Amino acid sequence: MRENLFRKIQNGEHPMPSAAVTLGAQIIEISAELGSIVIEFEGKSAFTNPVGNIQGGFLVAMLDDTMGPALAVTLREDEFAPTLDLTTQFIASAKIGKLVGYGRVVSKGKNVCFLESELKQNGKLVAKASATAVIRQIPR
Amino acid sequence: MRENLFRKIQNGEHPMPSAAVTLGAQIIEISAELGSIVIEFEGKSAFTNPVGNIQGGFLVAMLDDTMGPALAVTLREDEFAPTLDLTTQFIASAKIGKLVGYGRVVSKGKNVCFLESELKQNGKLVAKASATAVIRQIPR
Repeated sequence: MRENLFRKIQNGEHPMPSAAVTLGAQIIEISAELGSIVIEFEGKSAFTNPVGNIQGGFLVAMLDDTMGPALAVTLREDEFAPTLDLTTQFIASAKIGKLVGYGRVVSKGKNVCFLESELKQNGKLVAKASATAVIRQIPR
Repeated sequence: MRENLFRKIQNGEHPMPSAAVTLGAQIIEISAELGSIVIEFEGKSAFTNPVGNIQGGFLVAMLDDTMGPALAVTLREDEFAPTLDLTTQFIASAKIGKLVGYGRVVSKGKNVCFLESELKQNGKLVAKASATAVIRQIPR
């Protein structure tokens, strides 16, 4: 399983993917057994819409970057799992500052996986997402 | 209508929102009458996932930043339209480079609006989204 890779990322011994760096991601907690993860993000001024809130799409990028790792941590080294679809509900506006993503694997089948995540700011739910992913072998 | 504002943005006479700047957005075409817009984006290396493709969430940010303006261009100056939900289908992987978003207003009611958008790279469809938005008055 890739849990070791994520522990290395968490400990700063392995680089984060660029998208995660751009989103200011920091892994707070990982559980490969539960298929769950907690990641802190930075809502930057570079992500704001005309009214100064974090643009919804960047909140989705954070939710995606929470669900992806929640599943990835349970995969074997020779597997990857592209997302097929992703649905987001925007519950409240998010301001510049810290956001915390809570991701979990709802169901992991032989190929098809269902994922969900929540994004909170100061303890308040700002957005919620669900996604479908499929497990594939990494071509050699 | 806000069409004038978008023309000013297109002509470089008014600044883009930060999120749009981060996504490398350039307005290519606007039609307030049709409620449609074409926007070019820059898939940057800062947006890549571990396999070097553009992370899905950043594709959603581009789709959101296509649908939002498609509707906004039809609104009055005292109106705004937050997105309630957004669903994306990921059809193909996107590489670093230009992407083009095609957004349109499917239906604009008194309050509730349905939007859709497509994101293409080199003419190939990479992702498709639909969204619901509600028109609100900007508080004075």
